[in-house]
Amino acid sequence: MKLSIHLTAALSLPLPTPTTLMVEAADLGAAQTLEASRLYVAPFVVAEPFRDFYQNPCRRRLMPAGDVRLEYAATVSVPDARPAEREAYEADALHLPTETLLYTLPSRYCQSDLLVAMATDLFGDATPGLARVRAVCDWINTHITYQHGASDAGTSAYDTAAQRAGVCRDFAHLGIAFCRALNVPARYVSGYCLGLEPPDFHAYFQAWVAGRWMDFDATSLAPRAALVRVAAGRDAADCAWATFYGDGETRWLSVEVTDAAEVTDAGEIKGDTET
Amino acid sequence: MKLSIHLTAALSLPLPTPTTLMVEAADLGAAQTLEASRLYVAPFVVAEPFRDFYQNPCRRRLMPAGDVRLEYAATVSVPDARPAEREAYEADALHLPTETLLYTLPSRYCQSDLLVAMATDLFGDATPGLARVRAVCDWINTHITYQHGASDAGTSAYDTAAQRAGVCRDFAHLGIAFCRALNVPARYVSGYCLGLEPPDFHAYFQAWVAGRWMDFDATSLAPRAALVRVAAGRDAADCAWATFYGDGETRWLSVEVTDAAEVTDAGEIKGDTET
Amino acid sequence: MKLSIHLTAALSLPLPTPTTLMVEAADLGAAQTLEASRLYVAPFVVAEPFRDFYQNPCRRRLMPAGDVRLEYAATVSVPDARPAEREAYEADALHLPTETLLYTLPSRYCQSDLLVAMATDLFGDATPGLARVRAVCDWINTHITYQHGASDAGTSAYDTAAQRAGVCRDFAHLGIAFCRALNVPARYVSGYCLGLEPPDFHAYFQAWVAGRWMDFDATSLAPRAALVRVAAGRDAADCAWATFYGDGETRWLSVEVTDAAEVTDAGEIKGDTET
Amino acid sequence: MKLSIHLTAALSLPLPTPTTLMVEAADLGAAQTLEASRLYVAPFVVAEPFRDFYQNPCRRRLMPAGDVRLEYAATVSVPDARPAEREAYEADALHLPTETLLYTLPSRYCQSDLLVAMATDLFGDATPGLARVRAVCDWINTHITYQHGASDAGTSAYDTAAQRAGVCRDFAHLGIAFCRALNVPARYVSGYCLGLEPPDFHAYFQAWVAGRWMDFDATSLAPRAALVRVAAGRDAADCAWATFYGDGETRWLSVEVTDAAEVTDAGEIKGDTET
Repeated sequence: MKLSIHLTAALSLPLPTPTTLMVEAADLGAAQTLEASRLYVAPFVVAEPFRDFYQNPCRRRLMPAGDVRLEYAATVSVPDARPAEREAYEADALHLPTETLLYTLPSRYCQSDLLVAMATDLFGDATPGLARVRAVCDWINTHITYQHGASDAGTSAYDTAAQRAGVCRDFAHLGIAFCRALNVPARYVSGYCLGLEPPDFHAYFQAWVAGRWMDFDATSLAPRAALVRVAAGRDAADCAWATFYGDGETRWLSVEVTDAAEVTDAGEIKGDTET
Repeated sequence: MKLSIHLTAALSLPLPTPTTLMVEAADLGAAQTLEASRLYVAPFVVAEPFRDFYQNPCRRRLMPAGDVRLEYAATVSVPDARPAEREAYEADALHLPTETLLYTLPSRYCQSDLLVAMATDLFGDATPGLARVRAVCDWINTHITYQHGASDAGTSAYDTAAQRAGVCRDFAHLGIAFCRALNVPARYVSGYCLGLEPPDFHAYFQAWVAGRWMDFDATSLAPRAALVRVAAGRDAADCAWATFYGDGETRWLSVEVTDAAEVTDAGEIKGDTET
Repeated sequence: MKLSIHLTAALSLPLPTPTTLMVEAADLGAAQTLEASRLYVAPFVVAEPFRDFYQNPCRRRLMPAGDVRLEYAATVSVPDARPAEREAYEADALHLPTETLLYTLPSRYCQSDLLVAMATDLFGDATPGLARVRAVCDWINTHITYQHGASDAGTSAYDTAAQRAGVCRDFAHLGIAFCRALNVPARYVSGYCLGLEPPDFHAYFQAWVAGRWMDFDATSLAPRAALVRVAAGRDAADCAWATFYGDGETRWLSVEVTDAAEVTDAGEIKGDTET
Repeated sequence: MKLSIHLTAALSLPLPTPTTLMVEAADLGAAQTLEASRLYVAPFVVAEPFRDFYQNPCRRRLMPAGDVRLEYAATVSVPDARPAEREAYEADALHLPTETLLYTLPSRYCQSDLLVAMATDLFGDATPGLARVRAVCDWINTHITYQHGASDAGTSAYDTAAQRAGVCRDFAHLGIAFCRALNVPARYVSGYCLGLEPPDFHAYFQAWVAGRWMDFDATSLAPRAALVRVAAGRDAADCAWATFYGDGETRWLSVEVTDAAEVTDAGEIKGDTET
């Protein structure tokens, strides 16, 4: 499947502000192939590309003061179907690759240390492995209401466990927190997906099952084959699409994701592009 | 049933400190008859008896600096069995007595405003009335672990909903919060009970069902007929056994509750008593 | 000074919903005289007037399903100047009237138990009494930013102490929490005031100083002589202008407060009025 | 200066439990030279040494069920004095090395996103750079009370900002959160130090100032030259001395740090050692 991604945003900055952007679809080989992409920021300033701690592609620049317009367009190929899931069992913590252990620890929005009893109560009897992570997603899907405005940038998995409402970010945080509470490595993924209404960035999570990171989306809002990863990290704190080192305001933001097969005339971006 | 209550405590105060005590069993007529009681504080200082906002009996005095010894002994008659529960339906909020409405509002430790979705998810389908409050208690009894040290003086129902462990106070707070989230008036009761191990103050809650305040104890640690009420309020903040207006430390505290029928020689208190 | 108050609101209710309204200016004798007032709810339903736990005037009714229009108009006289403040000292907790002690205890939005060290650090050296409560207000006014959108219905004094931004409700909660942490009785007041921009309900607090409840408004947004009290309670949980026992949505709300001396043609309400 | 470190601990495990230990002093070249060290766990099981995400040395093993005794002894050389501090200015976020940017983001115990207004209010006017981080430490040292029992494993910088009491871990978390709120990279360091009373693990923080990680200890409990680093990470969640993947209990723990020049007979460890 080929997906067309089109992001436009208008920022407003009172002062020139160092800013890190993380909006570009990752190029992950066969699992996710970046066929074309252009990132355009106006007024133009030179950006420094770098990889963050998690190897996500980032760009840092000094955003000029005033109004800034941002546009990103990409075409991404993803397999028409995800690989068949194996009814895999969990590795115990002794046999987890050491590089996954970081993802068993609590983080800003995923206080797994506080949710051990709840996770054990709910999922302690499930078959360890894929079945258990699926049980986590099913529970979240059933018991948490998807509701805009019910949560904000400060809402964490701890809050969602009690308040029972939120958006994709909150669903992902709670899934991650439950997995970690069960000693299953889990991480947050920001990205794009087809079919979100209204269109927006998406968030889902990955759990380490059967020797690899598998995608899980407790919202069930998007076809799983149509998830496009931008960044992965411990939680949303590590994956913000824009980090302003100073005051910056997003005046508006528009995300469109379409099935490229259905699109005849791809959106074009004029001007200096970076990629 | 006749219960003998015997409380002894040692306090330590760096300065003379105004202190309110709420340790005395309430005298509630046939439902709870105070047959005898003596409260003894050494060194002796004159106390001012008063009724608080909720009509609970309190005593205020200037505790002297240094070591203070406190002793309370009482004999209380309670009916051998609680009145038979009627399978009562809830009054809707339009027909609740207006004096019960305060107990539908959130309070320090019972943030019912944040638990509406959880309460509705868990108990929204239960038959309103006694059956639903019993479902609340059953759920708490099943899903919250009774565990000393798992909570502290700052722990609230919101925390217990996520952390799933606590003591009687936490069980009561969560029960109250769920009830209020369902628009059922509920209040906190501090008191004594038979059979607690280790012996200590107890806490339970009352919900307004079928036109009266009914006792509920989600811990199921005590025979319901053997609950003795000291104070009722919105939550533990209103029912502290000792409130120091300054620095005060409880060096130790011992509570004994026995079935008076099994006791041959009641504990005697020597010295100046207040009651 | 004569103030004209004019409130209009549109509610939307999916089902007939028991609702308590607390929007009417209190009639407090010379301190606040209610000269005229009309409350109009359309469609008309009979309301039950009652006094809540704190003796605030309330009305309860079964709001019909659908769109409901609410209008309240009143003329209130308040003294042109508040009584001169005496440089009063605090009563210690032993000499506080027992009916004020409730207001030394923590509540839903005023976790004074958690702010004792902060209050003592900031205000422990101030002269007890009026000067100290003023120091509390000055500190809040200087260190908390008045900012719409920085807080929400779940924000408490504990949050505001760390996050340092909020609206009048948050300013009042923090003032109350600091006072209680210093053993000064303090309570929340909802009301109206002149000069708020944009016009809205207002909130301030009262502290027990020099033997009476004195008004304090840490926002300094309103002339103190132009505060009109509707309800007083432990915090905002007790003073909501509308409490829906079910789902209710406020579609819009408009509050106007004008100096009646400057108004030639008072707003008139047509229809069945209650008062 | 040569420091002798001696750690002994007794663990109790109901089941064989995968466990990661992070107790060994780091070998950092001239800044901290590990002269000798032995880690002894009884009963003996083979351990897997590895480096975590932050390159801290860790060991993972399957701890056997039952009582486990742990002993670690090391001799570490640290310079007699830390390098002279230069009155360095901050790099702005555009010129920070990209590998430090992770440490500007909020984490489990350091919710810098919620403390921006407080940090700006307190330290916004301080000279950026070393002087400002020192101002952060001075403020914490003055306003936070060092008090065992005032905090627990769930306490975060957000709590400490309001509650104003804690131990070294809390002091470090608050320092880190303030630095990050000011866009200064900051990270948590667990370690050992001379002179702590009672002896225990220690925690402090590092801020990125003048092009390098500099040590800061807001507790001022330890001579700065006598800090020995074990692990660095985003906060305490990343630096736990023992992480049990299952139930594990530390029955007791003893840490001794002495000036080796004053010790004639170094503690010896008998048995199978790992290093």
